[in-house]
Amino acid sequence: LAESRSLGDIGEHAFLARLCARLRERAELRSGVLVGPGDDCAVIDAPTYPLALTTDALVENVHFRRDWLTAGELGRRSVEVNLSDLAAMGATPTYTLVAVGAPPDVPADYVDELLDGCVAATEAAGGVLLGGNLTRGEGLSITVFAIGRHEGAYMTRGGALPGDLLVVTGTLGGAAAAVDAWQRGDRPAPALRERFVAPKARLAAGRAFANAGAHAAIDVSDGFLADLEHLCRASRVGAVVERERLPRLPEVGALDASGEDFAATGGEDYELLLACPPELESRLVQLAALCDVTLAVVGRLTPAEEGIVLLDASGAPHHPRRAAGHDHFRAGESRGGA
Amino acid sequence: LAESRSLGDIGEHAFLARLCARLRERAELRSGVLVGPGDDCAVIDAPTYPLALTTDALVENVHFRRDWLTAGELGRRSVEVNLSDLAAMGATPTYTLVAVGAPPDVPADYVDELLDGCVAATEAAGGVLLGGNLTRGEGLSITVFAIGRHEGAYMTRGGALPGDLLVVTGTLGGAAAAVDAWQRGDRPAPALRERFVAPKARLAAGRAFANAGAHAAIDVSDGFLADLEHLCRASRVGAVVERERLPRLPEVGALDASGEDFAATGGEDYELLLACPPELESRLVQLAALCDVTLAVVGRLTPAEEGIVLLDASGAPHHPRRAAGHDHFRAGESRGGA
Repeated sequence: LAESRSLGDIGEHAFLARLCARLRERAELRSGVLVGPGDDCAVIDAPTYPLALTTDALVENVHFRRDWLTAGELGRRSVEVNLSDLAAMGATPTYTLVAVGAPPDVPADYVDELLDGCVAATEAAGGVLLGGNLTRGEGLSITVFAIGRHEGAYMTRGGALPGDLLVVTGTLGGAAAAVDAWQRGDRPAPALRERFVAPKARLAAGRAFANAGAHAAIDVSDGFLADLEHLCRASRVGAVVERERLPRLPEVGALDASGEDFAATGGEDYELLLACPPELESRLVQLAALCDVTLAVVGRLTPAEEGIVLLDASGAPHHPRRAAGHDHFRAGESRGGA
Repeated sequence: LAESRSLGDIGEHAFLARLCARLRERAELRSGVLVGPGDDCAVIDAPTYPLALTTDALVENVHFRRDWLTAGELGRRSVEVNLSDLAAMGATPTYTLVAVGAPPDVPADYVDELLDGCVAATEAAGGVLLGGNLTRGEGLSITVFAIGRHEGAYMTRGGALPGDLLVVTGTLGGAAAAVDAWQRGDRPAPALRERFVAPKARLAAGRAFANAGAHAAIDVSDGFLADLEHLCRASRVGAVVERERLPRLPEVGALDASGEDFAATGGEDYELLLACPPELESRLVQLAALCDVTLAVVGRLTPAEEGIVLLDASGAPHHPRRAAGHDHFRAGESRGGA
């Protein structure tokens, strides 16, 4: 087997020229793209909708280790975590840009596959990858910028009211359980690995709930309780949540039953947490079918002064063993290595 | 003097909450900003112009060292290098997003000043900083995403024709001469330092030349010859350039006279290189006054088969001692340390 050539072997300009030619051809076939990747800027035609803009980064040894997932999976994941922010606002993805930092010894094939993953995730969501940037870095990092359009209503973290239902898409805690297995030197169960390496932004659900009149939404990236706290702070409300109702894969259920709190505190699930007026309850079955996603009512919003309360099966307050959410700047709480 | 608290001391969420509150208030005062920093996405009202989109990153020990410039200067520079890409297309800045990677021991004050610099540069150009992302990284890195609008014509790297004049704004080589001094352990002359720490995107010139009918443009980030090569490749033309005509500060002139080639090969000047139809020559004095920038005609475009030729004062081909432009992935050519 021939060794793949590294970025250092090929050189920045030669590698970029090849990469841009490939990406530009794809992008400029799409309507609205006046100038694709490879120039000083991309240029898009005037959109006629409000635009949602977001950025999120994945950093090696902070958010992932290279041996946890393939280059293609890493590229798709880098885009999906950004699309998840668009989903939380109810937006439809239109464009992405990708800024990669890489050490010189990274194989050029690796970066190609990474970018292919970024393109695949962008295009699967109906968007166009418009370009980006490549620079040397000490570790691998991928910073994605995503733009979406709002054809209908949009949601923010604010706007939730006491009495609203708390609805969660999909399942919680699987990604964190996979990371925990890797960090202990184990191989995560396939279903858990999948939750980490292949999150799917809940775009259809975001749009459907925004248009159905949901009051507020956030994507679960820091962990359910941490993101619930963000939503409650922005909306000036409290919340009561039943721990048993948090949706879990069977593998996560077993771990949480034996003392863990992956569903309540594990991050990087990229599901949506939605605050819905009570009259939406009767439409949840229909919305779940429409959006091809499971939906779980996990609690209810309360007045701000009641704070955030997590109840165990007996109805007593449950205090998670681990802090709610992780903080990448605090060594004791950081996950993902380093 | 009290020690400034680090990001690790304060924690990601507390720091971000404070930062976003500050940025959000500023941004939401501006028309067109429906949701400012601090939510899952920013939301802007539908623009009615074609949009230019770009991203560029500054990485510690690759593009800068922290002791070369203040946090505020680094923030402004991070934005200006992106606005320079907008200038090269003839666009007017509208929005920026900033993704910061930082080690946990970075003082929170440092990140605040860095962001203040990003806000200042964005607002000085008439734009709004819409938000961003903060993550842990091994070194400091700032990835900016900039959006501009085209009220008039836009330029690309393609479109230049044989016979076009090559026009350069400002002066070349100063930033590279400053970096060279730092790397030799010297202190650069104040005028050279200024060229590195405080580049100014040539936005007025970009707009004016686009509307005056310039055929092509690129910003000089990799180095004059390297960026000329990019423009020539995209336009399928060659070029002949007179080395003596490259505009230089006196300090750069002295270095280049003694065997250096900072003006021809040094990067990070963030000036514009423009391909102009010959009939624009008579309007250059007026354009320079209008845009408050010096303009130099440095050469002329030729048919592609003539390649790129740099002539010395005697009219003989000049071969720069250093490779044209730098390649961050090739150790021998990389600048900025590490």
